[in-house]
Amino acid sequence: MKKFVLAPDSFKESLTAKEVCQAMESGLRQAFPDSDYLHIPMADGGEGTMQSLVDATEGVVKELEVVGPLGETVIANYGVLGDGITGVIEMASASGIQLVPKEARNPLLTTTYGTGQLIKACLDEGVKQIIIGIGGSATNDAGAGMAMALGASLLDEKGCSIGLGGGELGNVTNINIDQLDRRLHEVDLLVACDVTNPLCGEIGASYVFGPQKGASQEMVALLDANLAHFANVIEKQLSIKVLEEPGSGAAGGLGAGLLAFTNAKLEKGIEIVTRYTELEKHVKEADYVFTGEGGMDSQTKYGKTPYGVAKIAQRHHKTVIGIAGHIGDGIEELYDEGFTAILGIVPSAVSLDKALETGFRNVERTCENIGRLLINSNRK
Amino acid sequence: MKKFVLAPDSFKESLTAKEVCQAMESGLRQAFPDSDYLHIPMADGGEGTMQSLVDATEGVVKELEVVGPLGETVIANYGVLGDGITGVIEMASASGIQLVPKEARNPLLTTTYGTGQLIKACLDEGVKQIIIGIGGSATNDAGAGMAMALGASLLDEKGCSIGLGGGELGNVTNINIDQLDRRLHEVDLLVACDVTNPLCGEIGASYVFGPQKGASQEMVALLDANLAHFANVIEKQLSIKVLEEPGSGAAGGLGAGLLAFTNAKLEKGIEIVTRYTELEKHVKEADYVFTGEGGMDSQTKYGKTPYGVAKIAQRHHKTVIGIAGHIGDGIEELYDEGFTAILGIVPSAVSLDKALETGFRNVERTCENIGRLLINSNRK
Repeated sequence: MKKFVLAPDSFKESLTAKEVCQAMESGLRQAFPDSDYLHIPMADGGEGTMQSLVDATEGVVKELEVVGPLGETVIANYGVLGDGITGVIEMASASGIQLVPKEARNPLLTTTYGTGQLIKACLDEGVKQIIIGIGGSATNDAGAGMAMALGASLLDEKGCSIGLGGGELGNVTNINIDQLDRRLHEVDLLVACDVTNPLCGEIGASYVFGPQKGASQEMVALLDANLAHFANVIEKQLSIKVLEEPGSGAAGGLGAGLLAFTNAKLEKGIEIVTRYTELEKHVKEADYVFTGEGGMDSQTKYGKTPYGVAKIAQRHHKTVIGIAGHIGDGIEELYDEGFTAILGIVPSAVSLDKALETGFRNVERTCENIGRLLINSNRK
Repeated sequence: MKKFVLAPDSFKESLTAKEVCQAMESGLRQAFPDSDYLHIPMADGGEGTMQSLVDATEGVVKELEVVGPLGETVIANYGVLGDGITGVIEMASASGIQLVPKEARNPLLTTTYGTGQLIKACLDEGVKQIIIGIGGSATNDAGAGMAMALGASLLDEKGCSIGLGGGELGNVTNINIDQLDRRLHEVDLLVACDVTNPLCGEIGASYVFGPQKGASQEMVALLDANLAHFANVIEKQLSIKVLEEPGSGAAGGLGAGLLAFTNAKLEKGIEIVTRYTELEKHVKEADYVFTGEGGMDSQTKYGKTPYGVAKIAQRHHKTVIGIAGHIGDGIEELYDEGFTAILGIVPSAVSLDKALETGFRNVERTCENIGRLLINSNRK
């Protein structure tokens, strides 16, 4: 009896990773009806990470009303994994760019306050560690809002709290962490972070990521100066150096804020996910490993889920099959990285809407045919 | 060393069958560099049949100026197969619907005269048999023009030749075949014909196929009456019954005209092509058979090339892999017909133009990955 490990990422805007697993099994079962199928919905720290980890561990998703990027109320999600002691959040759920209409995007104003509220909610659940996905931020506040939500006081020279948003950071002169949630000392924060940008300068948060969040060139200069000032205050008052730390510039400087105010450790997203899903243990026992993502191309090599899965499977000499809705340029660069084969699922020339709508059937049909090839070859 | 038989149809508007073979080999060679690849460009009697048979047998294609559907001059093609004694033509090359602008389509006027000229050109080459693909006609003249081009006289009650086009057939009172090319007696015409429609009536040429050639309902009635009249004259004067013959209604009644004026035998297109390409002999020696067509769906079962290839391969228990640019509804109905697997080649949601432009690369990439699956499974 063959054993299949199904470890795809989500197919963005079409299927969650869990749904991809279901479609894969449904197709493969046509060829291998009595095989063993293990579903491991995967993610790489980006969008879908919370859902995938919850699904992979049979955890739960909860809703929370939080402060959105521009101070409005938004409904955000966080998860508690099946182990009951690990929380998982995506900063974008509370403070993401998708929550801000294009014309309102302004990183002088946007805040990570809601992300802090999500962390607090995890603490209230009694977790021992929190995994944080930080992709897709609307913010450039170095996690100042997050810190304030968790009880830190960021004060100006008059002793008043500064306001929310990256534009206010220049006013901080004093940081008081007496009221900072004490549970943060006992909980590890694993930050899924694939970028190594420092907080400031040409390759820092403001210059590299500011414009896509709505910052003009003038704003970028001001935001960058504010981040540098805030890092300077942090260093002086908390004795923590964040300015040059690799990854401190991630998510508008949220990387720096997490390092300053929590027991944060930055790690590649795919590594966190593969560890929490115990992927390697399962892959060792598999005959065939299936993975995939909405899109695969030469960039997949840089920490995307299918690459992470393939590398683990390669270590154990397993057949790894990747599928994708969009097979992009340079796919052949992946063949040496552990992929046995990579196939597209789109049945014909169709619109993107149509392709997204028919994702389940397309994954199913493609996997059925791959299964038919595998079983036929086995019989030879 | 594995032996691959590559026997695809053309991918219409993208690749000839020969080009599909080349792309298949190019992809498969990445996985099986030292294998043996036999190219058998295929067809089913439809568009591309002449080119595929010429390519499969290393024959030649020739050009000829002929009378087009509306009497204009067109450059048509015919082929002589590698055996030197078989001619091959497609009626659409001289008398096809694609030669007539939509607004000018009128089966009262369109003629098969040019098709007769192509047959004559084959006779001039000294062939012993002629394969005729009859799909895509613009005509409804029961092959009257074809017969006239080959020397038959179709005369009205005044003893004058009738004009060209289906609208003139009602005027025929006398058929004189004294001047009909005598070489037609010594040459067999193999008509690639998948339809069994009779010449006249509700499921006859005019009613079923007339409207798509530009006939109004009034025209259809007149065309049908004219075909019946012509069949009646043929029966009286040549003692040949064509009215009820299965396939006589094919190609606007060209089926009937060929039966009346030549040594014609109607046969399924795919059967003619598989015989002339000696497909079965080659498939017997193959490890893997690859086929495909621009589009595959449940209709593929009705005499399309991939189906014909799969059935032959199935008889010899061979692995058959089908690929297509468009995987349509009901593809799963083909699994029981001999297909090991059927996979799409389109890499993502793209426009039809883009898919057609990138056909070679898409066939190549898909076959490379199928090859990678096969070789991996072989190693297990």
